[in-house]
Amino acid sequence: MDPIAYLRQEARRFREEWKEFLRIPSVSAQSAHAGDVRRAAEWLAARLKRAGLRVEVRPTPGHPVVIGTWEDRAHGPTLLVYGHYDVQPPEPLDEWDSPPFEPTERDGRMVARGAVDDKGQLFLHVAAIEAVLATRGALPGRVILVAEGEEEIGSPHLENVLRADLARWRPDVVLVSDTSMIAPGWPSITVGLRGLVYLEVRVQGPRSDLHSGVYGGAVVNPANALAKMLAALVDERGRIAIPGFYDRVRDLAPEERAALAALPFDEEAFRREIGAPALGGEEGYTTLERRWVRPSLDVNGLLSGYTGEGAKTVLPARAMAKLSMRLVPDQDYRDIQERTIAYLQSLAPVGVEVEIVPLHGGNPWAVTPQGPWFEAAARALERAFGRRPVYVREGGSIPIVEVFQRLYGCPILLVGFGLPGENAHAPNEWMSVDNFHRGAEAIAAFYEELPRALGEGERRW
Amino acid sequence: MDPIAYLRQEARRFREEWKEFLRIPSVSAQSAHAGDVRRAAEWLAARLKRAGLRVEVRPTPGHPVVIGTWEDRAHGPTLLVYGHYDVQPPEPLDEWDSPPFEPTERDGRMVARGAVDDKGQLFLHVAAIEAVLATRGALPGRVILVAEGEEEIGSPHLENVLRADLARWRPDVVLVSDTSMIAPGWPSITVGLRGLVYLEVRVQGPRSDLHSGVYGGAVVNPANALAKMLAALVDERGRIAIPGFYDRVRDLAPEERAALAALPFDEEAFRREIGAPALGGEEGYTTLERRWVRPSLDVNGLLSGYTGEGAKTVLPARAMAKLSMRLVPDQDYRDIQERTIAYLQSLAPVGVEVEIVPLHGGNPWAVTPQGPWFEAAARALERAFGRRPVYVREGGSIPIVEVFQRLYGCPILLVGFGLPGENAHAPNEWMSVDNFHRGAEAIAAFYEELPRALGEGERRW
Repeated sequence: MDPIAYLRQEARRFREEWKEFLRIPSVSAQSAHAGDVRRAAEWLAARLKRAGLRVEVRPTPGHPVVIGTWEDRAHGPTLLVYGHYDVQPPEPLDEWDSPPFEPTERDGRMVARGAVDDKGQLFLHVAAIEAVLATRGALPGRVILVAEGEEEIGSPHLENVLRADLARWRPDVVLVSDTSMIAPGWPSITVGLRGLVYLEVRVQGPRSDLHSGVYGGAVVNPANALAKMLAALVDERGRIAIPGFYDRVRDLAPEERAALAALPFDEEAFRREIGAPALGGEEGYTTLERRWVRPSLDVNGLLSGYTGEGAKTVLPARAMAKLSMRLVPDQDYRDIQERTIAYLQSLAPVGVEVEIVPLHGGNPWAVTPQGPWFEAAARALERAFGRRPVYVREGGSIPIVEVFQRLYGCPILLVGFGLPGENAHAPNEWMSVDNFHRGAEAIAAFYEELPRALGEGERRW
Repeated sequence: MDPIAYLRQEARRFREEWKEFLRIPSVSAQSAHAGDVRRAAEWLAARLKRAGLRVEVRPTPGHPVVIGTWEDRAHGPTLLVYGHYDVQPPEPLDEWDSPPFEPTERDGRMVARGAVDDKGQLFLHVAAIEAVLATRGALPGRVILVAEGEEEIGSPHLENVLRADLARWRPDVVLVSDTSMIAPGWPSITVGLRGLVYLEVRVQGPRSDLHSGVYGGAVVNPANALAKMLAALVDERGRIAIPGFYDRVRDLAPEERAALAALPFDEEAFRREIGAPALGGEEGYTTLERRWVRPSLDVNGLLSGYTGEGAKTVLPARAMAKLSMRLVPDQDYRDIQERTIAYLQSLAPVGVEVEIVPLHGGNPWAVTPQGPWFEAAARALERAFGRRPVYVREGGSIPIVEVFQRLYGCPILLVGFGLPGENAHAPNEWMSVDNFHRGAEAIAAFYEELPRALGEGERRW
């Protein structure tokens, strides 16, 4: 029996075990659930051990990291599989159609908190590993499965755990299933993430709030000044007006644009889903291009003066904006941060003082989907879904990708089995049951394809 | 003995009585002080009765209105004197150098809550009336003194009281001492107030907040849109860019500008007082012109997205601004409100919906300081202060002026004896003791001058 046949034979059991996993309310953000998070770690550890891995539950100052390893150094590469067993808080509870921790199958969907983010996607790896070990007796090379319990609270301790084992674990590739397919039936590999510059802009005018009748017209109003400064950041064509902002932005090749245009993406369905009167952005680009491969600038927050009910005639002493930019290759976040600060300061009118505080930054990430790892993944996905994968991007960043990139500098395979509208982080989170099973088959097929793909490509270990 | 000599002879007693009045914590906004407000009304009523007026304490659904009348219809006009016996809350208490309700004389100042706003200015009228009645036996014509106890909470019941007596009380002139002199030694009559349009601007983009990474660049951001709209309201020269906004703004005559320029106003001291890095406003105008006789536009509040500590990558669903304009003769607030709404709607980009809610509006007010009433006031002020009054304006509005204007349409004399920096509504409120005495003398002199001035001018009763 091959691993795929094994997975099909045991499908019902795997689905029941997935539900068991989902019933544990491992909400990492809520201290009342600390025991449940621990219980989920132990459940997962036991399950990995049964699948045939050597397992350790590594304590941290927060929630533990579950590490499962398979060692066969003579025969293959080192593969690090990452996932997380913690989940978002389920609130607001009254918006769920079934209780968040009572997994319910409806219309081919498994509905539960964590169904897709990330318990379902993590557990399909467990099923795939069990299937390969049960039928082949070995995994290719060394496999390290790292499952953390703090992804939803910013992975504060993961990097230290990885660093502690850095000398031993030098993965040749990292495999993560925590992303989505672009549409049902379209297996997808995420090959790019945008970078980020996030700033707080503080404009100070008079020492304290003034009466807008007594002083209005003679004192430079920091809220008016802030509006002018923010308005000058993007021009009428939707281009960011910060000098030099586009200097390092890679032009889109015609074939890249063609590939994006060929993806099964429905702009009108997207617009309806977010409930905006119309879409809009940089002139000359499609919605997918604007979200994935073009930079953007958004005001994330505004605060000044009186914001309660009714009228208060205040000339505010200060005004604040949170402002962020999404970056694309080959922009550098430190460079953009500096340019933005300099430009904003140049826009500040006489009569106010402007302070700009950088709050967060990260570089864009992109990978060329070529070479043996991508080839193995493509073949595996084709075997499971009957179609070669498409290469998609994410407009946001995925913090752990940045960590892996920095620590290991190796290719990162983002092969996810979520779907648009799956309500991750929202009530009624779900995962396609079909994608769960096909995902497990694709991962099992990936282990099968690896030796062949690596034999064809260059051997890196 | 004439009234002035009487006031000087009784000066010490009047000062002690002023302090008695100040010791009653008549804070209209705080229900715990309701009994104190009532006590202040009764104290004032008793004092007016002793001065020689017929007195009534008129109940309202809130705090009472004290009405003192002198009737001598055969001999003169009807004069309505307005003041208020309630005070602002004293908080924050720890910023007072002496307890707010223990009046303390320091460096020629009476320091207490209500010292100048308005108990001192109201009580100097009581002293003046007593002095005239004690020495002359009569006031000219009919005098109605109306003192309310709800000015600091928006005068919710005053208009009904005035309306109840509208047929009987048709004042020829209203006299109010609740404003300030422009500088020590410079008696001032306030002859203009700016009008107001106050709007709330609500911009709605997507149905709910979105992730700024996943959606940024493809969805019109309501906070960015709001900033653009607000920025377009005022041009680079500080002119309001709403089409037709200046159509009805009266040009300043060269002599008006010269009169303003001649006032003892120190721009640098003003700048230091408000603690702004520099002053600014409409090009080509001085600070006093910008505050008093030119319109202005201020953002009073801004709110959108995430405003807490640190970074949150939200693309906000909505953004809100509070926005107000100060108007000058002959602008009409309904006209400006309509133009502003139409212009803002024209600025709204495709991709957001804009709702604009008018919250408040009022017309500018101005009076030409000519005719017998102003002449009598000018002569009286010159007798008390040794200088003819200057004519000043207020950048804000005074709600009761609007009420008197609407009900009576007669001249309103705003003759106040406050001074810049007197901390009305703030800790350590004070009134110049000298101004208190000179103010009483000026009001007594006004009653003396009235028959003469009215004999010279046209008789209106």
